Amino acid sequence: MSKQAAHPTLLIPGPIEFDDAVLDAMATPSQSHVGGPFVNTFGDTLKQVRDLFISTDPAAQPLVVSGSGTLGWDFVAANLVEPEEEVLVLHSGYFADSFADCLSTYGARPTQLKAPIGSRPSLAEIEKALKEKSYKVITITHVDTSTGVLSDIKAVAELVQKVSPNTLVVVDGVCSVGCEEIRFDEWGLDVVLTASQKAIGVPAGLSILMLSGRAVETFNSRKSKPGSYFASFANWLPIMRNYEAKKPSYFATPSPQLIHALHTSLTQILSIPLADRFTRHKSTSQYVKSKIAELGLKQLASKPEEQANGMTAIYLPEGVAIPDLLPKLMAKGVVFAGGLHKEIATKYFRFGHMGVSVMNNDLGHMDKALAALKESLEACKK
Amino acid sequence: MSKQAAHPTLLIPGPIEFDDAVLDAMATPSQSHVGGPFVNTFGDTLKQVRDLFISTDPAAQPLVVSGSGTLGWDFVAANLVEPEEEVLVLHSGYFADSFADCLSTYGARPTQLKAPIGSRPSLAEIEKALKEKSYKVITITHVDTSTGVLSDIKAVAELVQKVSPNTLVVVDGVCSVGCEEIRFDEWGLDVVLTASQKAIGVPAGLSILMLSGRAVETFNSRKSKPGSYFASFANWLPIMRNYEAKKPSYFATPSPQLIHALHTSLTQILSIPLADRFTRHKSTSQYVKSKIAELGLKQLASKPEEQANGMTAIYLPEGVAIPDLLPKLMAKGVVFAGGLHKEIATKYFRFGHMGVSVMNNDLGHMDKALAALKESLEACKK
Repeated sequence: MSKQAAHPTLLIPGPIEFDDAVLDAMATPSQSHVGGPFVNTFGDTLKQVRDLFISTDPAAQPLVVSGSGTLGWDFVAANLVEPEEEVLVLHSGYFADSFADCLSTYGARPTQLKAPIGSRPSLAEIEKALKEKSYKVITITHVDTSTGVLSDIKAVAELVQKVSPNTLVVVDGVCSVGCEEIRFDEWGLDVVLTASQKAIGVPAGLSILMLSGRAVETFNSRKSKPGSYFASFANWLPIMRNYEAKKPSYFATPSPQLIHALHTSLTQILSIPLADRFTRHKSTSQYVKSKIAELGLKQLASKPEEQANGMTAIYLPEGVAIPDLLPKLMAKGVVFAGGLHKEIATKYFRFGHMGVSVMNNDLGHMDKALAALKESLEACKK
Repeated sequence: MSKQAAHPTLLIPGPIEFDDAVLDAMATPSQSHVGGPFVNTFGDTLKQVRDLFISTDPAAQPLVVSGSGTLGWDFVAANLVEPEEEVLVLHSGYFADSFADCLSTYGARPTQLKAPIGSRPSLAEIEKALKEKSYKVITITHVDTSTGVLSDIKAVAELVQKVSPNTLVVVDGVCSVGCEEIRFDEWGLDVVLTASQKAIGVPAGLSILMLSGRAVETFNSRKSKPGSYFASFANWLPIMRNYEAKKPSYFATPSPQLIHALHTSLTQILSIPLADRFTRHKSTSQYVKSKIAELGLKQLASKPEEQANGMTAIYLPEGVAIPDLLPKLMAKGVVFAGGLHKEIATKYFRFGHMGVSVMNNDLGHMDKALAALKESLEACKK
């Protein structure tokens, strides 16, 4: 506890603050990656991942692999798309550009459907694009961490099912899984990829994916071999199935410490109804956004229905610069993030509100941060 | 300490036992991946990686990325070899087959030079192979974890420099870095790839590479784009240079907790001369191997100069099976590993002796393990 107490409160859109029990699990003594105790823990953790995605379809398949969220793009690009196949990339910020780059690396042909900064492509625009070309995959950034724009993945998935039912629906959920509502089976999603260090509340180092049965079939009927070795479903799917069946299996060494931390955090997350968790993130977000408005600040995402519930991207007021603001916040024990979207990086900052900072009111993180922001902005203007 | 004290002693060829301070570092409270404190730690850690490889060439480049050791193969295959280029893969066990698979995935043409199980290709065989074809890269498994066979990378590198000087020398050092002597600059190596969880003494989750200036130049003069996105030097080299220069930089989120653990372990490793560390692993290995011989057991690697110093692969005596032996050892608080080489997996077991279990005599791991082995074998024969 004392170690935790001494550190500034990290309220960036990932990594987030971690619960003490999760950090304790990071210090789990060494275990064999193929020994009974770890195989049990990993198997249970994979079942928890299904629960996190509200998925009961036995044909669906969770994957947890050492890496960062970015590795999830390689998994999609190297396994679900074959060279020369078309992908529609919905753009709501910086991360769509990178996902498109990744798709191109493996020979796919991405077409980006771009929206102005702070918004997302409309359903009408998406429908038009889907009718113009036959797409193997559509990708949606659920929450773009560079802009705080939320996409309506349920509505997009419904639209795809109506106008282009063979297109796989792939969601980049790096900044959404664990804080935004996701109903994997019910909404007919084919892939949600994420990372450990955001609303899942575990230190960075894990790439986490959920695949539909249809995604697995698509992979199984590939004509060409997967374009990656480390990020190959052929190498990992049998391993995940074995761990979940509590059978030791080896392709590359997983990290027992990170898996224990994930197991600990998912146990906490799943100890209350997920709907309550989503509601709490939404109400906290609305509280933060109302306070931000009271301070006279504007968000990048101007429409309420396009605003993420786990973070807020905020324009700096006239005359205040990042190198002035962030050190003043830091002096008050609060860490926010600067801008990330290349075109306007120096003009805004980002406030993450996910995980324990939202779910555990006793920590007082939100009011501490909002007070620090108010005082720091006032000091900047003097 | 109590948490550590309660667990069985893990003496498999990785993951190894971890020092208390390293596990404490795994529980470091959350930090921003682009904030000053973490950028400092990561920058210092990259400098330590240079020291670990005894490298002072400023053109050489360390890389530390979230992933497992296997990811290092993708880095080599996707960045240093172009489609249709030839690679000579020296085979001293299971891992060469996998590295060759990885190379093929990215379009390279691997030729394996195989030795019988328990040995390695001779210098004469390697010279002959190098003269038959022009190879872009030669790969050597320094210690094959499936067989415990040690390769003489210094002698192979000298030979390559003599008969095929344009060929890049790539070493798979997953089971050697931190326990076997490696002099990166002096021996003229181009790549050594490794992982965190073996003799480096850090939980699994990091892929660690050292590249020569020549390897970086080879990448820079590629005609085709790298074959991977997550494992692309184009994406990571600028990030590593920035962190080492203590400048924040972003491609994918690194794991502050794993990097802190690596920093802690490397600080311990580098606190005494590396030569002493190598000598201690060698003398401990000789002690273990002499005791194994006293028990009438034979190693897979029959020639002393081909025996690894961080592990021993041992044939089971007649009439003793893995499912009999390992639980008896476990009952005595010692975890060994079963066989891994597909052709003979059920016929042998593996004993890892690396890191704190070797360097800290007070732990008493070696004598505990040797006594447990002796008693367990006797119990198996009854």
